[in-house]
Amino acid sequence: MEFELVLKKRRMVRSFKDRQVGDAQIVRILKNAHRAPSAGFLQQQELVVIKNKETKAKLAEAAVGQDFIAQAPVVIVVCSNTDRVVKRYGDRGVNFYSIIDGAFASMLILLTVVNEGLAACFVGAFNDNEVSKILKLPKHVKPIGIIPVGYSNEAPEKFERMSLEEIVHYERYAQKKS
Amino acid sequence: MEFELVLKKRRMVRSFKDRQVGDAQIVRILKNAHRAPSAGFLQQQELVVIKNKETKAKLAEAAVGQDFIAQAPVVIVVCSNTDRVVKRYGDRGVNFYSIIDGAFASMLILLTVVNEGLAACFVGAFNDNEVSKILKLPKHVKPIGIIPVGYSNEAPEKFERMSLEEIVHYERYAQKKS
Repeated sequence: MEFELVLKKRRMVRSFKDRQVGDAQIVRILKNAHRAPSAGFLQQQELVVIKNKETKAKLAEAAVGQDFIAQAPVVIVVCSNTDRVVKRYGDRGVNFYSIIDGAFASMLILLTVVNEGLAACFVGAFNDNEVSKILKLPKHVKPIGIIPVGYSNEAPEKFERMSLEEIVHYERYAQKKS
Repeated sequence: MEFELVLKKRRMVRSFKDRQVGDAQIVRILKNAHRAPSAGFLQQQELVVIKNKETKAKLAEAAVGQDFIAQAPVVIVVCSNTDRVVKRYGDRGVNFYSIIDGAFASMLILLTVVNEGLAACFVGAFNDNEVSKILKLPKHVKPIGIIPVGYSNEAPEKFERMSLEEIVHYERYAQKKS
């Protein structure tokens, strides 16, 4: 699909059809996530792919009961393995770069999903400790986002965005009307 | 350009030609950044576009002397306006969602740049206070990334990535050889 079209079509979907996602599609999604940039090219992003019903239900619960997570045929949890970044960058590595890098990989997943004719949602609202326990993440591996993936069961809806003028500043920040 | 090709071609570029970037190109880049998702659709991402030589030099200095920032014809600083997220989400809004959302917009900039035949680099290593001072950011507006944009002056180079097997886990995290 054309790049611009992928961006235009991308939206958060919170309802999925009862239809499986092909393994080849999942691999293409994972491969693209793996193309994400990372601080110091340390490649800290790791991906946990979940199809197990019970695990998905537990993740939904850990994500303040967002049940559509359990509904999706496959869930990808994007994590950052902070082991190497903490050694090189200290606190900024753990509290900033690890989140940035996880979000980079997540954004590539959200876009690739559209290119595959699929839909997804980025979920950032979850209990970190619960997710870590469910997925048996070591202490240095931080969950950054839970991304349920499947076929959309929602009618496309258009949300009004702020105008470009409201969010763009030239040369320095200028207070806009809020 | 095809979506997959954009992803394949994307890389961090740290040397730019002495050639201007068209205003229409910049607007297309900003528009795509503005398509980024955001926590609670609060659209906290704001963009500061800098062409002024002195400002670019100051930003390069604030970014531990990464001089290629000053070399680029245009620099986009992605910020998160945490005003609304802190009200709705508290600490998680400021320390997590604001970074995620800024990285989402940054990733879309990095990709759109490729689609425009341009090149860019994401710089996360900078002194936050210095950048805020230079751009006159209010306290609730956090700089997330400095992105110099221009025509590449580098030969494409291929970096070896870890294998997909090393970063993907199924159903739960499994310790890999490091």
